[in-house]
Amino acid sequence: MMTDQGKIVSACVLIIGNEILSGRTGDENLQFLATRLNELGIQVMEARVIRDDCDVIVEVLNSVRATYDYVFTTGGIGPTHDDITSKCVARAFDVPFGRNAEAEAILLKYYKAKDVTDERMSMADMPEGVTLIDNPVSLAPGFQIENVFVLPGVPRIMRDMVEGMAHRLDGGDPVLSISVTSELPEGVIAKSLGQIQDRYPDVEIGSYPYFQDRKFGTNLVLRSRNEAMLGEATNAVRQMVSELSEEYAKNS
Amino acid sequence: MMTDQGKIVSACVLIIGNEILSGRTGDENLQFLATRLNELGIQVMEARVIRDDCDVIVEVLNSVRATYDYVFTTGGIGPTHDDITSKCVARAFDVPFGRNAEAEAILLKYYKAKDVTDERMSMADMPEGVTLIDNPVSLAPGFQIENVFVLPGVPRIMRDMVEGMAHRLDGGDPVLSISVTSELPEGVIAKSLGQIQDRYPDVEIGSYPYFQDRKFGTNLVLRSRNEAMLGEATNAVRQMVSELSEEYAKNS
Repeated sequence: MMTDQGKIVSACVLIIGNEILSGRTGDENLQFLATRLNELGIQVMEARVIRDDCDVIVEVLNSVRATYDYVFTTGGIGPTHDDITSKCVARAFDVPFGRNAEAEAILLKYYKAKDVTDERMSMADMPEGVTLIDNPVSLAPGFQIENVFVLPGVPRIMRDMVEGMAHRLDGGDPVLSISVTSELPEGVIAKSLGQIQDRYPDVEIGSYPYFQDRKFGTNLVLRSRNEAMLGEATNAVRQMVSELSEEYAKNS
Repeated sequence: MMTDQGKIVSACVLIIGNEILSGRTGDENLQFLATRLNELGIQVMEARVIRDDCDVIVEVLNSVRATYDYVFTTGGIGPTHDDITSKCVARAFDVPFGRNAEAEAILLKYYKAKDVTDERMSMADMPEGVTLIDNPVSLAPGFQIENVFVLPGVPRIMRDMVEGMAHRLDGGDPVLSISVTSELPEGVIAKSLGQIQDRYPDVEIGSYPYFQDRKFGTNLVLRSRNEAMLGEATNAVRQMVSELSEEYAKNS
């Protein structure tokens, strides 16, 4: 649908964790990453939620890191037995996995001597040759290896880490977005909206129905890198909503 | 991690929609589907969020429907230009796409004559040979084709449709789950928890850290199809939490 010629920088988000697939935990990280990356000019083209299973992680990671400019993983980098992401990333890149001296130093500085345990220090075990990602909340760092950024699953910590490393990301032009809310059901606007979409191929127009208080309405979202076109298309959509609302009120 | 021999009935959830990937909308459907399917003895093994792009939908759908027992798609079956799911499903199955008489009859009964438009009636265009999925909220049905269930994206409507068709799904033994909350950081419990996991290979033990009021805690979730083993492992985890909490309180 998007046919403008701006540079598209693409990303995939990999959410690693059985707790999301069992329904126990609702993922909060995708929406943050998608929004924040979009502001940085990076478009999330795909997201996958996968199990804590090394074979699966390796296979999926190797597939998506070859396809997209960036990959962001969340989850599985803590100190417990089910935290297997770092080890699997090493396997995916076919590099040795072991103690990262810089990460080790950060943890040793943070923990009191009596709290230094093998399990805690295992958070400093990483693939060889990574660049650390600072963790301002709990210090255990994430890491970057080539185009893959390995982040924790706890939303608050993940978000702070992304803010701290945002300068490392090289985005294209951000996609601008304008929303128009209407109290019209999709069926009422579908025809005219399709015609507007045909007129503005450089603007991606999404139509999102909602159902509230037993009534249907539709949110229309226009997205484009072309600000002028986006403005024109938005005016057309606003005019359409205003005209159809009048008509709809008369007829219902 | 799960090594019990019960029959595993697997599923993939495909969330179709640019609005989720742009961050505009947070997905609410995966958590509902994962939870509800789990109750029915169906395990969601993977979820993917993909763009409104027919080539992508066809490729991904054909891959996952060959891999898993069931596939559930959400989104893209309304009357607007960006609702392309049904057409793409027909392409994936390589079957003709056209007016479904039964769906047409439902829509014609629902809409007043003046509200019958080409766009609304397009919601009755489906792949040939589908079984409809009733929509008790807004009547426009979803459909099932082989092991693929095509559902709308509006959470309230999707949920009601799943409840109505749950009897069609043939699940295995549901996975039982028990949560134990602790106010201990993961690092404190990692070693003992790993030992318990080793003792109970038929129980999947997940450790989920949280960060609240500037303190770390951990939720432990035990899952198994084996009720007796689950009970034993849970007792072991509870005892561990109680012992370590005492020790931790003394030391901090």
